[in-house]
Amino acid sequence: MPELRRDPIVGRWVIIATERARRPNHLRSTPEAAATGFCPFCPGNEAKTPHEVHVFGRPAAPADVPGWQVRVVPNRYPALMIEGELDRQAEGIYDRMNGIGAHEVVIETSDHGKDLCDLPDGDVAQVLFAFKARVLDLKNDMRFRYILLFKNRGAAAGATLDHSHSQLIALPITPRQVADEIEGARRHYEHRERCIFCDIVGQERKDRGRLVHENEEFVVFTPWAPRSPFETWIVPKRHESNFEAEPRERLTYAARALRSTLGRIMSVLGRPAYNFMVHTNPLRDAASPSYHWHIEVVPALTQVAGFEWGSGFHINPVPPEEAAEFLRRVSV
Amino acid sequence: MPELRRDPIVGRWVIIATERARRPNHLRSTPEAAATGFCPFCPGNEAKTPHEVHVFGRPAAPADVPGWQVRVVPNRYPALMIEGELDRQAEGIYDRMNGIGAHEVVIETSDHGKDLCDLPDGDVAQVLFAFKARVLDLKNDMRFRYILLFKNRGAAAGATLDHSHSQLIALPITPRQVADEIEGARRHYEHRERCIFCDIVGQERKDRGRLVHENEEFVVFTPWAPRSPFETWIVPKRHESNFEAEPRERLTYAARALRSTLGRIMSVLGRPAYNFMVHTNPLRDAASPSYHWHIEVVPALTQVAGFEWGSGFHINPVPPEEAAEFLRRVSV
Repeated sequence: MPELRRDPIVGRWVIIATERARRPNHLRSTPEAAATGFCPFCPGNEAKTPHEVHVFGRPAAPADVPGWQVRVVPNRYPALMIEGELDRQAEGIYDRMNGIGAHEVVIETSDHGKDLCDLPDGDVAQVLFAFKARVLDLKNDMRFRYILLFKNRGAAAGATLDHSHSQLIALPITPRQVADEIEGARRHYEHRERCIFCDIVGQERKDRGRLVHENEEFVVFTPWAPRSPFETWIVPKRHESNFEAEPRERLTYAARALRSTLGRIMSVLGRPAYNFMVHTNPLRDAASPSYHWHIEVVPALTQVAGFEWGSGFHINPVPPEEAAEFLRRVSV
Repeated sequence: MPELRRDPIVGRWVIIATERARRPNHLRSTPEAAATGFCPFCPGNEAKTPHEVHVFGRPAAPADVPGWQVRVVPNRYPALMIEGELDRQAEGIYDRMNGIGAHEVVIETSDHGKDLCDLPDGDVAQVLFAFKARVLDLKNDMRFRYILLFKNRGAAAGATLDHSHSQLIALPITPRQVADEIEGARRHYEHRERCIFCDIVGQERKDRGRLVHENEEFVVFTPWAPRSPFETWIVPKRHESNFEAEPRERLTYAARALRSTLGRIMSVLGRPAYNFMVHTNPLRDAASPSYHWHIEVVPALTQVAGFEWGSGFHINPVPPEEAAEFLRRVSV
């Protein structure tokens, strides 16, 4: 059973994922990466994954057969386990609980050769609809407080399989990074009675130097203080704290903004490895006037080194204004 | 001039190091890594670095000539600039200041073929003495609030040169990671009037399951909630908040613990890339009863992926008890 452990000094939780444990000499390779040619995410290999929990593009029954366009399955090497109770315990001055959670894989396309940004807008929208359906379903499990939706593309970004996919992890606690954002946004709201993300969207649309792209509903820009070169945010123009509260029509605009953003990054940087993460309001919190859901895209271009590990401070060699100019110039 | 920019939501600062800027297609390579064979840190090549600011092993004058054992020079590609004023400014809702700071390289040995852990204990101690001398000197510059001492070894840990070296960055602000530790330690002290690090040292020496090594003055263990496999901490047994306040004799014990720790990690993991960071009390703060300086060693074995980026939550496939067992078993 994986464990959640809390650092007693800063309160940061980590997942000790013993089920994934490997011996020291195996740490740098993974079973999947070592495999030759076989892809468990390709049509026809449905039996090689756990049973699907969501499908789009063919009827739900019979399950686990080809014909699908988007398919969601539990991760075969989950970081957290779906069965069991949290069982919070102390160990001297330390805190732990069982590693309860859900870890699912969203297979974004049946086409092994395509990345998310190579799909038409409508197909990208189906991926976001699948995200929403899974969040709404998992929200019924009262053990979970947060669901992180994210994508790792390419080995340098932590992906172990090439076939285009994203992931979700449902957690019994709200992760620190999101909690920090929510707390910062709350403080801003307390002083000004305005959402800080709405203020940022306003300033970026006025300044224009970091603006990459916009459509009717979403704005894409490189943030003022990016941790990484070409970090890019996709933010809804209209205030909304919860990703899963967005109607399908607005998710269609989100999909267009996402595909355009990824396409620009792929084109400017030569199809790099990248991560994206959806940040949204915690599952049990009421819709918030101060927090605002958004997507953060981070190309995997720089190494996290001692300075970043030790300080939480990032050194970014590319000003966001320069990155935005490159990203704006591309036609996608 | 590099810039320090503050994220308006979470308050995290980043360094936009424009002087190091490279075009998108050059982002993954660095000038040094591309060079063939030539090493600016080797004896005889002293003219290829900026003028030395500290030397051990030969007289200080004439400077920049061979014969040294440890040599400290400003970084030729500094993340921050030593000259100028902070000039704090607002840009709409955003905050920035000039990227003022010091960025120095500690060349740990004149022998190109040796890593820090291959040196005798006495030579490792000279490196720690050099750290202390540089901190005491830079502390006189009232613009600086914090000095981070760290080492990147190997390309996967962010090193661009092979010749064994560590670095220091003096900053006009206390980095968030350290501020979080200080704040967490302060809260613990408020409730219990005890230092949390002293409590941790006590529990680790009693439990023994995460203990790796100890000598008269220092204890080495894998922490309860490690972010990364084989993360290892070196902590003084006697309470002391400031690294630079340690007398030379205790730094000799620190050097022995550091060399032993690095030697064990090298042996168990097959000479991996790694980072270490010294965490100490900020320069302008009085000696603290609640904070406790220490060294964190993190082998570069796992990739920071979307989940870690998006959550600040780390997934660690190796329980610290298992890592400690491997590290204990090695003879060094």
